Amino acid sequence: MLYIVGLGLADEKDVSVKGLEVIKKAERVYLEAYTAVLLVDQQQLESYYGRPVILADREMVESKSDEILAGADERDVAFLVVGDPFSATTHTDLALRCRQHEPPIQTRTLPNASILTAVGATGLSLYNYGQTVSMVFFTDDWKPSSFYNRIAENVGLGLHTLVLLDIKVKEPDLKAMARGKIIYEPPRFMSVAQCASQMLEVEEEMQQGVCGKQSLAVGVARLGSEDQRIVAGTLEELAEADLGKPLHSLVLCGKKMHEMEWEYVQGFAVDPDKFDRIWKADYAGKG
Amino acid sequence: MLYIVGLGLADEKDVSVKGLEVIKKAERVYLEAYTAVLLVDQQQLESYYGRPVILADREMVESKSDEILAGADERDVAFLVVGDPFSATTHTDLALRCRQHEPPIQTRTLPNASILTAVGATGLSLYNYGQTVSMVFFTDDWKPSSFYNRIAENVGLGLHTLVLLDIKVKEPDLKAMARGKIIYEPPRFMSVAQCASQMLEVEEEMQQGVCGKQSLAVGVARLGSEDQRIVAGTLEELAEADLGKPLHSLVLCGKKMHEMEWEYVQGFAVDPDKFDRIWKADYAGKG
Repeated sequence: MLYIVGLGLADEKDVSVKGLEVIKKAERVYLEAYTAVLLVDQQQLESYYGRPVILADREMVESKSDEILAGADERDVAFLVVGDPFSATTHTDLALRCRQHEPPIQTRTLPNASILTAVGATGLSLYNYGQTVSMVFFTDDWKPSSFYNRIAENVGLGLHTLVLLDIKVKEPDLKAMARGKIIYEPPRFMSVAQCASQMLEVEEEMQQGVCGKQSLAVGVARLGSEDQRIVAGTLEELAEADLGKPLHSLVLCGKKMHEMEWEYVQGFAVDPDKFDRIWKADYAGKG
Repeated sequence: MLYIVGLGLADEKDVSVKGLEVIKKAERVYLEAYTAVLLVDQQQLESYYGRPVILADREMVESKSDEILAGADERDVAFLVVGDPFSATTHTDLALRCRQHEPPIQTRTLPNASILTAVGATGLSLYNYGQTVSMVFFTDDWKPSSFYNRIAENVGLGLHTLVLLDIKVKEPDLKAMARGKIIYEPPRFMSVAQCASQMLEVEEEMQQGVCGKQSLAVGVARLGSEDQRIVAGTLEELAEADLGKPLHSLVLCGKKMHEMEWEYVQGFAVDPDKFDRIWKADYAGKG
């Protein structure tokens, strides 16, 4: 059996009791470590579980899944995923390979918290979200703006948009590679401020009024942990906000934002008066 | 401190390790028992936690929250919620009351699995969902069709729709009430088949091609538990499908359904050939 075990969002104790039992009994334990990260490191997990954890990077999961699945038709293997097991298509793909394996490998997934629902901590109702979008790090010559059209669709319906922010873990250093060396760049995590800036940059170009300086949004950091932070404001304000250590995400508020949502979220505002003024002028009853 | 603790979806062992520690130490433990239910009963939870659990029904949470919050500015109270703490606006409302309490009560939420992400087990990507809708039990003279417009918005964008199905727990028996007695009706849980039938009934009336007999959909039951079931087919097929015991949910597939999603979901089809035929004719590349 391949167990795909969600670890939740913050630390080693966010795993479910059932998940922990599986981890303690499995023959091998893998940790998927490139689509998301916990706020604690591998060593802390190993010491809590009392057993070794094999780090599974993108290459292993995508090209060497046979290693992970070896013997799983007869014995138990645990594949640990930060957040919920189905938070990335990678994990659906792994389950599909189990189904097509000869002999087939049974899979069982143990769900857990995901940023997709933990973001409810902002007070914005989970029923008023449209599609989720991803924001990648812009470079000088690569500024993909496909997120803009998806956000525009949500905005058109008055819905909130959760924007998931890029992380770069174990990216090869291309200059070193050219010299025949394999060196990895230090990990990078996009901040709420950078995401807001990139959104404003694309709005500047597209000019459709989808995510401008006065659009209301909420930045979140380290959700589910003891030092989680939530900051609400205009995109212009959030582009200057410092929410501290990773992981960050951003929610762009939809025009349908209900009075009850507003009442809760304004408690997190950088400038509550301004937040209220914009909500009343541009949002309330405009959905 | 008020801890709002997510319990996950299936049984007593889906709570996180951290959540279990909170439950064992809190002065009082409440279980919200009307917006969702676990697949095990209160007694099983109490025996696992080794302590009493107070059932909080709608009346207590909405009208007598002072009872729940009593003393929580100085001591720890745990409020347990099936799924994720923010899966219902009720819980945001409780957190808001803590903030407005005199003196203010600190709150901390412990996220957990929710049907909103566990539904990823169908293979339909969580990034391709639009807004979530609720389906209530129709009666002879009350058939609210507001869900239809929300689904139509998702369909217009080619997105999937998660439909959450009504549950009736501790509903007063109105006839008995008229005779001065307080008797509660037995709990009722909507099935995938009933939901599909109600969708077809409203489509029949509205005629906008939003959720017709040949629309592809996926029914899920008891997600996250060992006997979870997933069945894919047309709404007409699902209206005849029996997925067994509660809880059930339904996903209406969007036209943007990607080939990789289709490959996974067709493994659950009632009639795989028919499913493929309809996908190729009406879905593939039509998003």
